[in-house]
Amino acid sequence: MSKEITSREKDYSQWYNDLILKGELADYSAVRGCMVIKPYGFALWENMRDVLDSMFKETGHQNAYFPLFVPKSLFEAEEKNAEGFAKECAVVTHYRLKTDPDNKGKLIVDPEAKLEEELVVRPTSEAIIWNTYKGWIQSYRDLPILINQWANVVRWEMRTRLFLRTAEFLWQEGHTAHATKEEALEETKKMLDVYATFAEEYMAMPVIKGVKSANERFAGAEDTYCIEALMQDGKALQAGTSHFLGQNFAKAFDVKFADRDNKLDYVWATSWGVSTRLVGALVMAHSDDSGLILPPRIAPLQVVLVPIYKGADSKPVIDEKAMAIVNELKKKGISVKYDQDDVNRPGWKFAQYELQGVPVRIALGLRDIENNQAEVARRDTKEKQTVGLDGIVGYVENLLQEIQTAMYEKARSFRDSHITPVDTWEEFVQTLETKGGFISAHWDGTPETEELIKTKTKATIRCIPLNNTVEEGRCILTGKPSRERVLFAKAY
Amino acid sequence: MSKEITSREKDYSQWYNDLILKGELADYSAVRGCMVIKPYGFALWENMRDVLDSMFKETGHQNAYFPLFVPKSLFEAEEKNAEGFAKECAVVTHYRLKTDPDNKGKLIVDPEAKLEEELVVRPTSEAIIWNTYKGWIQSYRDLPILINQWANVVRWEMRTRLFLRTAEFLWQEGHTAHATKEEALEETKKMLDVYATFAEEYMAMPVIKGVKSANERFAGAEDTYCIEALMQDGKALQAGTSHFLGQNFAKAFDVKFADRDNKLDYVWATSWGVSTRLVGALVMAHSDDSGLILPPRIAPLQVVLVPIYKGADSKPVIDEKAMAIVNELKKKGISVKYDQDDVNRPGWKFAQYELQGVPVRIALGLRDIENNQAEVARRDTKEKQTVGLDGIVGYVENLLQEIQTAMYEKARSFRDSHITPVDTWEEFVQTLETKGGFISAHWDGTPETEELIKTKTKATIRCIPLNNTVEEGRCILTGKPSRERVLFAKAY
Repeated sequence: MSKEITSREKDYSQWYNDLILKGELADYSAVRGCMVIKPYGFALWENMRDVLDSMFKETGHQNAYFPLFVPKSLFEAEEKNAEGFAKECAVVTHYRLKTDPDNKGKLIVDPEAKLEEELVVRPTSEAIIWNTYKGWIQSYRDLPILINQWANVVRWEMRTRLFLRTAEFLWQEGHTAHATKEEALEETKKMLDVYATFAEEYMAMPVIKGVKSANERFAGAEDTYCIEALMQDGKALQAGTSHFLGQNFAKAFDVKFADRDNKLDYVWATSWGVSTRLVGALVMAHSDDSGLILPPRIAPLQVVLVPIYKGADSKPVIDEKAMAIVNELKKKGISVKYDQDDVNRPGWKFAQYELQGVPVRIALGLRDIENNQAEVARRDTKEKQTVGLDGIVGYVENLLQEIQTAMYEKARSFRDSHITPVDTWEEFVQTLETKGGFISAHWDGTPETEELIKTKTKATIRCIPLNNTVEEGRCILTGKPSRERVLFAKAY
Repeated sequence: MSKEITSREKDYSQWYNDLILKGELADYSAVRGCMVIKPYGFALWENMRDVLDSMFKETGHQNAYFPLFVPKSLFEAEEKNAEGFAKECAVVTHYRLKTDPDNKGKLIVDPEAKLEEELVVRPTSEAIIWNTYKGWIQSYRDLPILINQWANVVRWEMRTRLFLRTAEFLWQEGHTAHATKEEALEETKKMLDVYATFAEEYMAMPVIKGVKSANERFAGAEDTYCIEALMQDGKALQAGTSHFLGQNFAKAFDVKFADRDNKLDYVWATSWGVSTRLVGALVMAHSDDSGLILPPRIAPLQVVLVPIYKGADSKPVIDEKAMAIVNELKKKGISVKYDQDDVNRPGWKFAQYELQGVPVRIALGLRDIENNQAEVARRDTKEKQTVGLDGIVGYVENLLQEIQTAMYEKARSFRDSHITPVDTWEEFVQTLETKGGFISAHWDGTPETEELIKTKTKATIRCIPLNNTVEEGRCILTGKPSRERVLFAKAY
């Protein structure tokens, strides 16, 4: 077989790349650090996007679209944000190419078409959006503004990974404007909850909700809330962030509103986003050495039916029965493919659908039909079951739900067993090196200590969990007093 | 009223801008030639996009995503395509900003972060996609590839207009690869039909299907098929194009496939696209001096219900009845808003919904309820009707269909009466100057004559209609023989 997958044990990183490439989610491109999202991978992203989009609309948000480019003078207006992103900005400096006079058929940048002001390709859109909001907000009647944008953004990363860290990626970014601090904080937390619900109920990926430490905060935010997931190699992955921006952007762009008493004040802001990075998270949260394992609620294809032909005679009989099942499944809203391709053998197909993580596979041969049954295999556990044809549609419908639940429970049990409380530096280092996962430990609250821990171990504070209990203790590194534990981990 | 609309007669161009800005479809941005698509305009685009996306999927296409950037060396590979777009390319030359040492808080482009090879922001994606297809295609088994992409593209236009011509715009671009010329040609025409069906059945905008002359062909295509619509000022608008690319891109990127006999040949290609420009077309095809008129099948909001409160007592009574109607309409899949806002008066609301082109408005007051009736107004003709409450849901449902049909018929009758056959140069010039619209005339078939006509009159050949009859005649300008009439018009 040409499509062999490297095992996780042998080379976790290569295993991941194999799944993405051989599972046909994405491909490398000719542009440094940028990927091509292939149809199967894009269908997965579309399903994720559509669910999130509904959740955003149900919580009162509307979509809009703002320019790809940010003029440099706007980009630098909010200083911390600018400083945070300056080092990874793709910059447009010219607006025309011309024929190379020295090289027939080649083009060069036309030096006469230099822009007066350079344009930054958006790494995030706070600057261009808040500059626009200035024109839309005069009074409290114009608030709140609850807008989301689905867009591509560019961050010039030096080390890239398919889906996890690419120079260009697709994402959504919500940008809201409010009359009060309380309302903005409420929005920040509401959208964090939306992300957590989506991750757990659709991606079957348990997450911890928390707040970032100052070091890990979004550049320009007062507070960054996040959801953190755990991958199978024991590394954490930040799966979504929701920022309380305070009045920072309103001040940078001079966005004031008149309240009910006609008093002027700066507007309060939030922003929140998830990206195609979630596809990478999904892959690493669930898959095994045979390939992808996709949760039924967002899988591009939920069920595949593979006919087992024995000679040309059997074809019409099997096709008729198969199509009847396929149509019944479709009526239930289940996405299903009948794979009638006659080039590849069933065994090859089984491996291919396993590799691509299709949750349920039905195999149907002539003898099955004689016995009024079919073989149903679930991808997550690879268990097979012989099922009577009369009840097969209901069986598959239930099985899809069961797989969704089982995938979540499995990931949650793995995650829960990988949150290790430690009280000494030795334990901390040892747990990190041997077991990995989240380490719950006391920290003295200073950026300096966090930085020192990162330098020594590569572990960072993933978050201060929202449901944390107050617990007196001493910092694992400095021994200084601490009021609560925080979660450390190595992270993607 | 602050939201007055300039009349078409007074200033057509200002009328258009008023509708876009005051109708809240879009806004200007801080970036030269780029616009902000506001929530109402984006909801309209989303509806158009969703219908088209279904139509693409029904015809066997899948979505994917390719990089925003095209390395210059790939961009220049297909010479005609490169030459056609070189003059309007935004070019990324650097990947980092740094603090300006001479100017605290400001940033400058870091000269040390100059890219070895410049990146063109895609004006269209043939180059990056065909470079990718090279890796995906070995044999006829890999064909056809039927991929579509929803994306933003950038073309640095000198004179921009909201929606009609912006430096950045949103679009879809289909890129297909085929084993035979016939199949590629069939695909080209199939997608033209999809566009025509969409324009007529959803946008209520009649279109003429045709082929472009060589002068108006897409750079790099063998043939460009198009749909052409007519705006109310008598100017034509190209609403969608479908290109037969021959083997041009396969040759430029060396994409060969082995056929069933294992013989190598270059792959055949098509590409096709429509953009946010369609929103501009929709606005100009239907609207009047009171504002937008949107066809029910793609209107963001199909029905609005405005309560006419007289004193606080009437509110609960009206609200109860109104919500019952709203819920019934929603059950029918009709999008409806109950406008309970108590700041603005009903008259203000009526004008606002008229301006925003909501197809049906229901007004409901206390006396209406006593008489078991409501006032229903249709936006296209502004006719009002008193309708009994018992049958109002069915009435509105039918009315929406009636409006859709009436809008199409009105636009078609206008279009049909603006296709003028002329046989002399004098007639041609006079018709163009007085009546406008499409002029059906003989042309000698040379690019030189077409160019000369354009220089003299600003009219271009919009298309050679697909259903043209062969008819001997003489070119209106040169008097040379011609075998068929073509359609001229001034165009957006």
